[in-house]
Amino acid sequence: MREEKHLHSLTLLAIWLSLVVTSARADEGMWLYNDLPRELLKERHGFEPTDQWIEHAMRASVRFNSGGSGSFVSSTGLVLTNHHVGADTLFKISTREHNYLEDGFLAKSPSEEQKSPDLELNQLVAIEDVTDRVNQAVRSDMSPADAFAARRAVMAEIESESLKQTGLRSDVVTLYGGGRYHLYRYKKYTDVRLVYAPESDIAFFGGDPDNFEYPRYCLDICLFRVYENDKPAKIEHFFEWSPKGAADGELVFVSGHPGRTSRLFTVAALEFLRDVALPFRLAELRRHEIVLQQYGLDSPEATRRAKDELFSVQNSRKALSGMLRGLQDPRLVADKLAREEALRSQVAADAKLKSGREAWDQIAAAQQAHRELFIERQMLERGLAFRSQLFEIARTLVRMAEEDQKPNAERLREFRDSARESLEQQLFSTAPIYSDLEIANLADSLSNLAEELSGNHPLVETVLTGKSPQDRAVELVSGSGLADVAERKRLATGGPAVLAKSTDPMIALARAVDPQARAVRKRFEAEIEEVERQAYAEITKAIFATSGTAAYPDATFTLRLAFGTVSGFVEDGKQLPPWTTIGGAFDHEKTHNAQPPWKLPSSWHKARGRLKLDTPFNVVCTADIIGGNSGSPVFNRQGQFVGIIFDGNIQSLSADYIYTDELARAIYVNSGAILESLREIYGAGELAGELGR
Amino acid sequence: MREEKHLHSLTLLAIWLSLVVTSARADEGMWLYNDLPRELLKERHGFEPTDQWIEHAMRASVRFNSGGSGSFVSSTGLVLTNHHVGADTLFKISTREHNYLEDGFLAKSPSEEQKSPDLELNQLVAIEDVTDRVNQAVRSDMSPADAFAARRAVMAEIESESLKQTGLRSDVVTLYGGGRYHLYRYKKYTDVRLVYAPESDIAFFGGDPDNFEYPRYCLDICLFRVYENDKPAKIEHFFEWSPKGAADGELVFVSGHPGRTSRLFTVAALEFLRDVALPFRLAELRRHEIVLQQYGLDSPEATRRAKDELFSVQNSRKALSGMLRGLQDPRLVADKLAREEALRSQVAADAKLKSGREAWDQIAAAQQAHRELFIERQMLERGLAFRSQLFEIARTLVRMAEEDQKPNAERLREFRDSARESLEQQLFSTAPIYSDLEIANLADSLSNLAEELSGNHPLVETVLTGKSPQDRAVELVSGSGLADVAERKRLATGGPAVLAKSTDPMIALARAVDPQARAVRKRFEAEIEEVERQAYAEITKAIFATSGTAAYPDATFTLRLAFGTVSGFVEDGKQLPPWTTIGGAFDHEKTHNAQPPWKLPSSWHKARGRLKLDTPFNVVCTADIIGGNSGSPVFNRQGQFVGIIFDGNIQSLSADYIYTDELARAIYVNSGAILESLREIYGAGELAGELGR
Repeated sequence: MREEKHLHSLTLLAIWLSLVVTSARADEGMWLYNDLPRELLKERHGFEPTDQWIEHAMRASVRFNSGGSGSFVSSTGLVLTNHHVGADTLFKISTREHNYLEDGFLAKSPSEEQKSPDLELNQLVAIEDVTDRVNQAVRSDMSPADAFAARRAVMAEIESESLKQTGLRSDVVTLYGGGRYHLYRYKKYTDVRLVYAPESDIAFFGGDPDNFEYPRYCLDICLFRVYENDKPAKIEHFFEWSPKGAADGELVFVSGHPGRTSRLFTVAALEFLRDVALPFRLAELRRHEIVLQQYGLDSPEATRRAKDELFSVQNSRKALSGMLRGLQDPRLVADKLAREEALRSQVAADAKLKSGREAWDQIAAAQQAHRELFIERQMLERGLAFRSQLFEIARTLVRMAEEDQKPNAERLREFRDSARESLEQQLFSTAPIYSDLEIANLADSLSNLAEELSGNHPLVETVLTGKSPQDRAVELVSGSGLADVAERKRLATGGPAVLAKSTDPMIALARAVDPQARAVRKRFEAEIEEVERQAYAEITKAIFATSGTAAYPDATFTLRLAFGTVSGFVEDGKQLPPWTTIGGAFDHEKTHNAQPPWKLPSSWHKARGRLKLDTPFNVVCTADIIGGNSGSPVFNRQGQFVGIIFDGNIQSLSADYIYTDELARAIYVNSGAILESLREIYGAGELAGELGR
Repeated sequence: MREEKHLHSLTLLAIWLSLVVTSARADEGMWLYNDLPRELLKERHGFEPTDQWIEHAMRASVRFNSGGSGSFVSSTGLVLTNHHVGADTLFKISTREHNYLEDGFLAKSPSEEQKSPDLELNQLVAIEDVTDRVNQAVRSDMSPADAFAARRAVMAEIESESLKQTGLRSDVVTLYGGGRYHLYRYKKYTDVRLVYAPESDIAFFGGDPDNFEYPRYCLDICLFRVYENDKPAKIEHFFEWSPKGAADGELVFVSGHPGRTSRLFTVAALEFLRDVALPFRLAELRRHEIVLQQYGLDSPEATRRAKDELFSVQNSRKALSGMLRGLQDPRLVADKLAREEALRSQVAADAKLKSGREAWDQIAAAQQAHRELFIERQMLERGLAFRSQLFEIARTLVRMAEEDQKPNAERLREFRDSARESLEQQLFSTAPIYSDLEIANLADSLSNLAEELSGNHPLVETVLTGKSPQDRAVELVSGSGLADVAERKRLATGGPAVLAKSTDPMIALARAVDPQARAVRKRFEAEIEEVERQAYAEITKAIFATSGTAAYPDATFTLRLAFGTVSGFVEDGKQLPPWTTIGGAFDHEKTHNAQPPWKLPSSWHKARGRLKLDTPFNVVCTADIIGGNSGSPVFNRQGQFVGIIFDGNIQSLSADYIYTDELARAIYVNSGAILESLREIYGAGELAGELGR
């Protein structure tokens, strides 16, 4: 069986190579809502969306700031997302006694709905192109460091103005790596309550082995409700519900927040990913995974405490491994290089694009600069040396006190006025922090710091203060009072003097490493980030000038529209159907002798007799998605909700830098299966009745 | 509970620091059989072993060349070792249908005893000091490369002569890092048959979480029988059996093969371990662990195929993590440095030791040289880029053909005449090779090569031949005929021409990388290995000259005698008893709700009523052990077998560079519990009757 899979990877490549030649990437694209490919949609699918259709879809889409997507599915504030997106909240409201993450949850009445300690949902309401204003603030004779500062200042200014004018969350988003700047305005929801979640055994049926595979049988859903003034919010734009879902071959749309792609990256940037960033990140994920596994062996309660984090780490490890596998195929890089050389030739031949001729070399030079400060930046500024929630809190408090002394435009970006509310939502979260888990994580990451820099490095000495990583982690975590939200608030409002005097060991550590962390960040911003922004702006200009068709920017965890058709595919010579059925879940359990993770919850067995077993369960379509799209609504031409994205198949993992619709598929839970399970399995007929109304 | 453990690690350190001051390391030492600390034994334990006692213990000890220890326990050829040492063979003789590793095994009659496909056991029969002859071959005016070649040549010559004279396996062993050279002569047993193994659920009761912990409840044993001329070998030197075992506080001896310690390492060498070698090795173990976990998820058969390898990887990962944790404690390095400076002062002040004054700086320079070629050597020469049994076979065949063209004295050491039989025992093993597991391992290691060297490195291009690591692994494994032993024999006897012509892709790969692998090995031998040998020879001279007491060399996987007393210890303020009982295993199961890995086999539950529950089961003693000692016999003054070593507690993991008997303990299975379980649980009364007779 495994051999077949390996053979299939060859098959994939053969098909992919043929695609390179024909470039028939039909349903490619994570499109901006203010720049949809109307012609393409018309030409290829005979569909012409109205402005109303577009705005409705946009406003019915929801961003989970914890890292995922969702949608409004009722006028009464119901928001549907994936179980694995809601897991963060499920975990935070669980206790030793009530394990909602594992056992599921159903609020019998509104009063039982459980408030999330820190969730923020965003609804996009407007997009404005502010490219010119941003670029005008940056003069061509500025040094990269000055240019970066000027750009940051104007972005903060735009955001602050917008917030004052509209009261809406306002973010300037960098698109095309620096080619465009758009202002996104969001309505925020911060009172978010859990309504329903199934058991994790069916939400993640098949577990890690089935993850990124198809056929699948997962009820990967979770329902929240947003509140305003302590009452369910009234929602104007929500998706109607299609009780059956989409037909085979039908055109469907996906509206969500793809997190990050690298499709416009130059070859030098891809090589940096391949040779430096991904290997480093994977090594970190592996050690994190093993720490959590070891920690969880201690007791069932430890297993519970580690579970959400472990899932997320394993999921990332599997996804990034797939991405690295793609980049390590010399044929992919060769193809990218051929395209790059073609574009460079066009730029060289076109006087109007003259200013872009150096862009690729500038990006290559930036990668070289990045290599030099990569480890230090990851360890200090990105905090990989301090894998600890308490440390993150300490760092935020220390920096906030310092940054707040500066004018808004000069602050580190995360401390700008317009982002303050969201920052405090996280900082003052009442989610539990488990000190034993903190110690296990922090000890490992301190050890990693010593490994990366060497045991005698002055910074390691500063951090460890003469102790072993393990002893130092115990000291830092046991000695810190930052698990207490009141203490955080006291420090947050005390200003620099209070922070400077604090003897909390975690605060002291954050203070001690901050000068060096800031220094490496500053270098990164000037030598890499700003250089790349300017160079990618030139490349974007070249792409727009030379390519006949519209281009979409790489993913940025902002709202995009993708489309495709419901469509099975051929794997190992076998035609896979466009969907599985609810009955198939029982067969799949049997095939695996009901051994975990292929054990269905007892609720499913009890309800079996009542279920319409031929109800389509998980469906595959060709829409272009990536991590961050989890929880995205899938809807039809009529704007009716037909399902919710929860995964891509293994063949879609190289979508980070290349799209193919031959084998790569997005996988979603069918709307009909959601109704069927709510009604027949979970006794949630009333809740089901709210959907789409 | 976890916090307590962490606190305890502080306690350990406090005690250890006090030890540094008092230097009361009473039962420290892995002593050479030809240089036992007779005075120390007399003084401390009032024991004076006779020459007969010593020779008997030596000859009753057995080395498992697969990596462990054991002992003769009957005149009829029975050899006792750990289940986890025998696991390699248990795995190799298991199939999808018969999982001896998991389910255990008992031969009802000699005809049912199962032959190992490749096991070689060694019985040490004589030691001879050949230091002078080795050193005389190396002139002081030689370059390091010439010195290395001359040393290798004289070692091969000594071994070859000894083999011709005695017919015995003859190995020149480097001791004290180069301070002494001893010739070890072994009687070899290569017809080794499995007689008995318990279920892995009791052999490794408590699994990974309990590994390196105490209290323990493991029947970690396995019985083989050696044959000569197809008949059970008649053994003169075997241990008598103590039916009860040792008393609390009783003096016991451990005779076994500790694999490797670094106690004589200079600080520069320890820092190299801490900053380079251990982090690298741990990263490799983590990726290997995750590959095996992922592979095993595929099916129960895949789980079975990966199990033995996975255990070994996890065991190493846990052990090396503990070692790194110790080295990353700045206080340990500071202590080592203080000792080193004291010795260097003595050397500086003593004209007779003048030649040793540069030794520490030379070793430091060698570490620097080692850093430069470390990755390349690990990847190519140590083969970490090619994690594949088929590749190892291919490399051996390619090199053997080339080396055999040279005189014995000039060959790479593993191809010397005197080692040929053992080499062929491995090379022609009939143990199964699973191609799907080979592909999973090889793909990951090829990916690792590309990560370490970068995707565009010429060597990566040579190895991958334009394919992705995954595709290349499939091609290499699927295309190779080396799983077939007959094909290996054909190639092994064909000579260089046949090897050069072979189109087997694995052979071609081994050929392609061999020049570079040999080049880096040559540099390593001249710039690091030889430099270290000469410098450690000087340091050894200084230690002997300046220390009043005898010194023992670092472990070298050769036979050593350790001693200590049966002794409980205090952990987290709680006195732990010197032994657990058979009844305690049932309690331990209950405490963990009989959840795996705390589920006792059904055989134990069935026998419960018959068992003497107060029989001592696992016992702790202060003897100085390390990895490789697994399976070592524990015996009393009378030379009676009282148990078999199977683990050390977590506090013993820093024994690699420092010994303490305050908290570090060796853990062994009591002789009485072995009898009780064979008779009452496994219906192996006859077998039990053979023990000690």
